[in-house]
Amino acid sequence: MSAVRVGLLGLGVVGAGTVSVLTRNAHEITRRAGRDIDIVKVLARDPRKARALAWPKERLTTDAGSVLDDPTIEVIVELMGGLEPAREYVLRAIRAGKHVVTANKALIAIHGNEIFAAARESGVVVAFEAAVAGGIPVIKTLREGLAGNRIRGVAGIINGTSNYILTAMRERGVEFDAALREAQALGYAEADPHFDIDGIDAAHKLTILASIAFGIPLKFDQVSVEGIRTLESADIVYADELGYRVKHLGIARRMARGIELRVHPVLIPHRRLIANVDGVMNAVLVHADAVGSILLHGPGAGAEPTASAVVADIIDVVRTLTTDPQWRVPHLAFQPDALSDGPILGMADVESAYYLRCEALDRSGVLADITRILADLEISIEAILQKAPAPGADHVPVILLIHKVREAKVDQAIARITGLAAITGPIRKLRVETFD
Amino acid sequence: MSAVRVGLLGLGVVGAGTVSVLTRNAHEITRRAGRDIDIVKVLARDPRKARALAWPKERLTTDAGSVLDDPTIEVIVELMGGLEPAREYVLRAIRAGKHVVTANKALIAIHGNEIFAAARESGVVVAFEAAVAGGIPVIKTLREGLAGNRIRGVAGIINGTSNYILTAMRERGVEFDAALREAQALGYAEADPHFDIDGIDAAHKLTILASIAFGIPLKFDQVSVEGIRTLESADIVYADELGYRVKHLGIARRMARGIELRVHPVLIPHRRLIANVDGVMNAVLVHADAVGSILLHGPGAGAEPTASAVVADIIDVVRTLTTDPQWRVPHLAFQPDALSDGPILGMADVESAYYLRCEALDRSGVLADITRILADLEISIEAILQKAPAPGADHVPVILLIHKVREAKVDQAIARITGLAAITGPIRKLRVETFD
Repeated sequence: MSAVRVGLLGLGVVGAGTVSVLTRNAHEITRRAGRDIDIVKVLARDPRKARALAWPKERLTTDAGSVLDDPTIEVIVELMGGLEPAREYVLRAIRAGKHVVTANKALIAIHGNEIFAAARESGVVVAFEAAVAGGIPVIKTLREGLAGNRIRGVAGIINGTSNYILTAMRERGVEFDAALREAQALGYAEADPHFDIDGIDAAHKLTILASIAFGIPLKFDQVSVEGIRTLESADIVYADELGYRVKHLGIARRMARGIELRVHPVLIPHRRLIANVDGVMNAVLVHADAVGSILLHGPGAGAEPTASAVVADIIDVVRTLTTDPQWRVPHLAFQPDALSDGPILGMADVESAYYLRCEALDRSGVLADITRILADLEISIEAILQKAPAPGADHVPVILLIHKVREAKVDQAIARITGLAAITGPIRKLRVETFD
Repeated sequence: MSAVRVGLLGLGVVGAGTVSVLTRNAHEITRRAGRDIDIVKVLARDPRKARALAWPKERLTTDAGSVLDDPTIEVIVELMGGLEPAREYVLRAIRAGKHVVTANKALIAIHGNEIFAAARESGVVVAFEAAVAGGIPVIKTLREGLAGNRIRGVAGIINGTSNYILTAMRERGVEFDAALREAQALGYAEADPHFDIDGIDAAHKLTILASIAFGIPLKFDQVSVEGIRTLESADIVYADELGYRVKHLGIARRMARGIELRVHPVLIPHRRLIANVDGVMNAVLVHADAVGSILLHGPGAGAEPTASAVVADIIDVVRTLTTDPQWRVPHLAFQPDALSDGPILGMADVESAYYLRCEALDRSGVLADITRILADLEISIEAILQKAPAPGADHVPVILLIHKVREAKVDQAIARITGLAAITGPIRKLRVETFD
């Protein structure tokens, strides 16, 4: 049986990692796949870079067309990242009847509906396991391993940079800015960390997870997104005292009135396994009706873990080369004609428990005023914590844990509490997830 | 497209759970699979039982032949458990050209080599995700999700009963017998708990995991097996003091001299996620060269979680109905002709760190004698803990943590230490895994 001929777009960190895994494990992979996998052509932006120089010259090109138009290439692996020209190249490959493997979460989250429609028309597979949670096979688990379930929700630590920063803030008591600089020095955060720390990257991944969990089209622009930039270490400390860890989660949940799609920091009881996922690790928790809860934990980024997912996808594609397209695993887990659609809930309609922190002047009656406001709005309090004032300070932190309620109501309460004369400064609001 | 016709053998807890999931989620499943799944005949041992009575009479039978010989049935789901007649029925179904889905770990671990050879000959699929770790898709993860990796090792909490008992012993300080009775009262342990508490069930599952991780034939009879029956709560308490949890693990590891296949209690540092898997939950940790470490956590037993895996397998089988057998995922992850074989290491050849506890007369010189014996054998000590004697007792517990060494050497040391005049009673030996 002849080798499968693969064209690789992009020889950056993940591209080089993929080449390295395919080369090192060639024997093991062929023992599994029953066929050799041969990277016959690589598109590299800069052929003078070390990674490119290590690659046979006759298999290296700076001309995308010479990869995309090569009729002997059956599979295109897109590891360039970014929206353009990745989108153009992927669509061109699809229209030429080639299967595509990609690690590009932004591309799938934003242009996935168009890409999968084109793939369906051409009868090819677009595989994207590496786009979510790096080396953790979460796409396969949701799409195939839990295919008998009605999936209720997915919650994941799906951005390693944010999780590294939150871990550093808790373990070493540093503020956000110092933790970010530390992450940048270690190569865990980019020079421009916007996508990671403002939740964009997590929103891309959550968009994909939600689609395959619920059988809905990709709806990136409807995800409610908050990052971790404004988090203060004080809240991480208070949360810890109350038995919670602060994590940045992507949450997709099927509710009676619609689907929640949201990315933001969350307090999680420290007894939960997912609360103990630290550093750059990722973890995805799936709630489904038959299986109950499943947690998948592992490295969410890095050259080799991402390559692990890319290579698994290539092997999957090789296996489906002879399969009638109708019997392949559908791109978004559900048959394209069976995708459903329904409302996505805005944050005002989300129900959650909450952690609130206000700074109040140290005078009597403040707690009475606050609890009166909450009672008037029928918001139920789980706990109130009034800390001692810092030496010399005239105000004290008041921390409230609030039972599950619609967020619109909490925002109303916050507006009213902010209006109290004794309250100084803005009120901090963090959502709480117990996963009970 | 007509429905896939399925015959079900066994209407016990898992059989009834599978019927219930297939019925409840019929719409969701068809949206994914693109085809209805119809259980057209059920073999029930006792048709007067409530589960059977709830099932349409014309689809119920006590005659295996009327299911196995029905030419319209494409898939047989075996959920009877036990070796015979399950083996006979499965082989008969395979020879009749039917695909098989089974949750039967004993059957696969002991007769899998024969069954997969027969399946290969008939060009059918035998799917067995439910045989290991219940609802956790660990077979799919190893076989497909990590297919690009060279897998170094697998370690799992794969028996919920044992994990429940160990959790109860630690959390409530009870001894093994009381914890077992508690598990039995709650339905987590059977009246005859032998398979669970003596490690047989875990050994079945480990056998399967090792085969698909390393591409070796199933070798159940070469697994080294120890259960939890002789564990004392004292050791769980001392382990806790030292920062460890005691867990019952199945471990399969690829070493230079051969493969380790072992099931026994293990001390794990409590900072490790897998050390915090409590109650009846299961978890499997996979170490592989590209991805690093992946942990999968979830319910390892129960009607619906097991049914989740069974139904996922049925859907997978439906998808491969039109696939050339050569391109299906191989039963044991590697192509049948590419299975390798090599020595399985006995416990004497295993390298591990150890926890030893001896009871010594409270007199000077005992520690000097013990450390001298260890030094003579070039065994390196990580820590020694000498507890105060219990009130009125004339002997004290001495606890040793020993660095990694071949087990044969530790056993030599234990024999010599046991021979010391000051040592009273047998020495407790537990292995330590740090997963560093």
